Amino acid sequence: MTSAERVAVLGTGLIGTSIAMAARAAGEEVRGFDPDPNVLARAAERSGLRPGASLAEAVAGASLVFVCTPVPSVAGVVAEVLAAATEAVVTDVGSVKSHVLVEVERTVPVGDRRRFVGGHPMGGSERSGPDGASPSVLDGIVWVLTPSPDTKEAATARLSVWVEKVGARPVVMDPFRHDRLVAMVSHLPQVASTALMGLAATEEAGEPDILLLAAGGFRDLTRLAASSPHLWSDILLANRAQIAEAIDLYAKRLSEIRDMVIAGSGRDVERAFAEAKEARLTLTAKPTVRTGVSVLQLAVPDRPGALADLTACLGAAGVNIEDLQIVHSPEGGRGTVYLTVVSSAADEAARALQGRGFEPLRLA
Amino acid sequence: MTSAERVAVLGTGLIGTSIAMAARAAGEEVRGFDPDPNVLARAAERSGLRPGASLAEAVAGASLVFVCTPVPSVAGVVAEVLAAATEAVVTDVGSVKSHVLVEVERTVPVGDRRRFVGGHPMGGSERSGPDGASPSVLDGIVWVLTPSPDTKEAATARLSVWVEKVGARPVVMDPFRHDRLVAMVSHLPQVASTALMGLAATEEAGEPDILLLAAGGFRDLTRLAASSPHLWSDILLANRAQIAEAIDLYAKRLSEIRDMVIAGSGRDVERAFAEAKEARLTLTAKPTVRTGVSVLQLAVPDRPGALADLTACLGAAGVNIEDLQIVHSPEGGRGTVYLTVVSSAADEAARALQGRGFEPLRLA
Repeated sequence: MTSAERVAVLGTGLIGTSIAMAARAAGEEVRGFDPDPNVLARAAERSGLRPGASLAEAVAGASLVFVCTPVPSVAGVVAEVLAAATEAVVTDVGSVKSHVLVEVERTVPVGDRRRFVGGHPMGGSERSGPDGASPSVLDGIVWVLTPSPDTKEAATARLSVWVEKVGARPVVMDPFRHDRLVAMVSHLPQVASTALMGLAATEEAGEPDILLLAAGGFRDLTRLAASSPHLWSDILLANRAQIAEAIDLYAKRLSEIRDMVIAGSGRDVERAFAEAKEARLTLTAKPTVRTGVSVLQLAVPDRPGALADLTACLGAAGVNIEDLQIVHSPEGGRGTVYLTVVSSAADEAARALQGRGFEPLRLA
Repeated sequence: MTSAERVAVLGTGLIGTSIAMAARAAGEEVRGFDPDPNVLARAAERSGLRPGASLAEAVAGASLVFVCTPVPSVAGVVAEVLAAATEAVVTDVGSVKSHVLVEVERTVPVGDRRRFVGGHPMGGSERSGPDGASPSVLDGIVWVLTPSPDTKEAATARLSVWVEKVGARPVVMDPFRHDRLVAMVSHLPQVASTALMGLAATEEAGEPDILLLAAGGFRDLTRLAASSPHLWSDILLANRAQIAEAIDLYAKRLSEIRDMVIAGSGRDVERAFAEAKEARLTLTAKPTVRTGVSVLQLAVPDRPGALADLTACLGAAGVNIEDLQIVHSPEGGRGTVYLTVVSSAADEAARALQGRGFEPLRLA
């Protein structure tokens, strides 16, 4: 249906190498460059990309270029590529979009800018570098495309076709709107988690027992606090105005709950909690970043091998487990399993589980 | 070593029935009462407790009474029991301790108060009611005991011995200190989660796509928001001063991060994040509410049946999985499995996993 692209990947870390793998799997020619020769060599080994001796060599003759460098360097590399590869559609994979656009508009002639489409594949992994790469990093994810008013429609369309070809879901969105939304649902959660962990750690200095009382809920809330400080510092600074607004809105909402509690307004507190609960239950039933998935809820049987039974009967039924979470109560202890499977396999999964004596409840 | 207690349980929901089960398993006589006759009958069926026709009948002759009623009613029931069962040591299981103590000091003669020891078993379950009960709810958990200056040492000692007998870990703590610490690591996370979910839901009204961009991190942070509004309203109001202080400290820390971001102080942001990361990694390696557990970290292989392999080889090795979490990166996608097992089984678990080709890393 579409002609193959000649792909170039600049920055061959986890996302860059995963893109190279997906392009190779689609039968495309891929060149790559990374300033770290070891990273580049490993990426070549894992993905089959042809390493270039320089950025210029890697992008020569390319029809589609992915800039996968760290957030602060994206705009500069994009400008360089637009000048060097005069026929290519150029995109990037940074978590913040408007700051790149502003910089590109400042430094790149409008004619070249027409070939630039911002992008944000909303996938990733705890791992990093080419060794963490996998074509599955992109599989089923939302891949936001953020063309500017200058971008040619044909450029966005080409990138969109390619994104679908590798199994991701293209979503076209204004770059400023993208930054506002990710500030709220991606960057703010990170800040909220880091602030909570930092606060508890500070308190621990005077109260060494505090973490003895920290149950499952605290652990859930602070898991993100283990993320890369360097990566997140770059992201937050690149999106600073939107982050500040999101933090302000969050602080305002916290303060509203605080005031209801202090006033002893049980009915108001309960209403605020009920609204959030309703929204969260809707979210559980909703595909978020991955589309086309269903969630099954079931009680955790408390005996050795119970989880093995659960996963084995799904394996035997040929159902892949997309995600499995054991959710604890607010105060820790035993919990409930939430299983995520692709929607087309949900009925089969439920039958297999019932056959083994579990009682799955399908959410949505 | 210790003589058996004659146990009475008032309020036979999840915790009350679990306590009855644990007492029965220890060979003790157990009576119970619940204002809901269906709940009481089901608790009797599940645990073997003898239902009383009234509170007074249930506690007659008891040596140890557990008040397991909802937070707002605890103090009143405790006072009633101290008057009715004149020989018994009386404890409760509420999540907030000082408000009960203040009320008991106001209404109960000092002679009777000497037999009251506040308590907070830090376990629970997503489920509720007698059907969710299990002796394992108490197994290995931290059970905080909060005697007042009036409490006889012998009463605290008796309860402490009983708590150990049923497999939990007694931790004696000042009630006010308990409330301050749980405000920080249990109640504040709940408020933080609810506020974040509420904010996103409000934004969604104007931006229906916002949750499309909500990845694994957002899901982690908002999971608690699905907790019971009624339960939490009771807890927050009972601990209002401490909650307000915790929210204030949290808002202050958020505002500090906000100011660093707005000022563009990458170094400061990175330092704040690095401190929180360090604390979080220490926490992962630390037994929190459950003692004597170890955590193994391993990459998630991305193929059908991989999780079944993982759990099956542990099942075959006789290792019980205490907890299993698939942790996603800040931006969603594939992740890492964190397996929690009892420490004495950690070596065996690691060997079994290695034998199946996994590469577990033991944290701590």
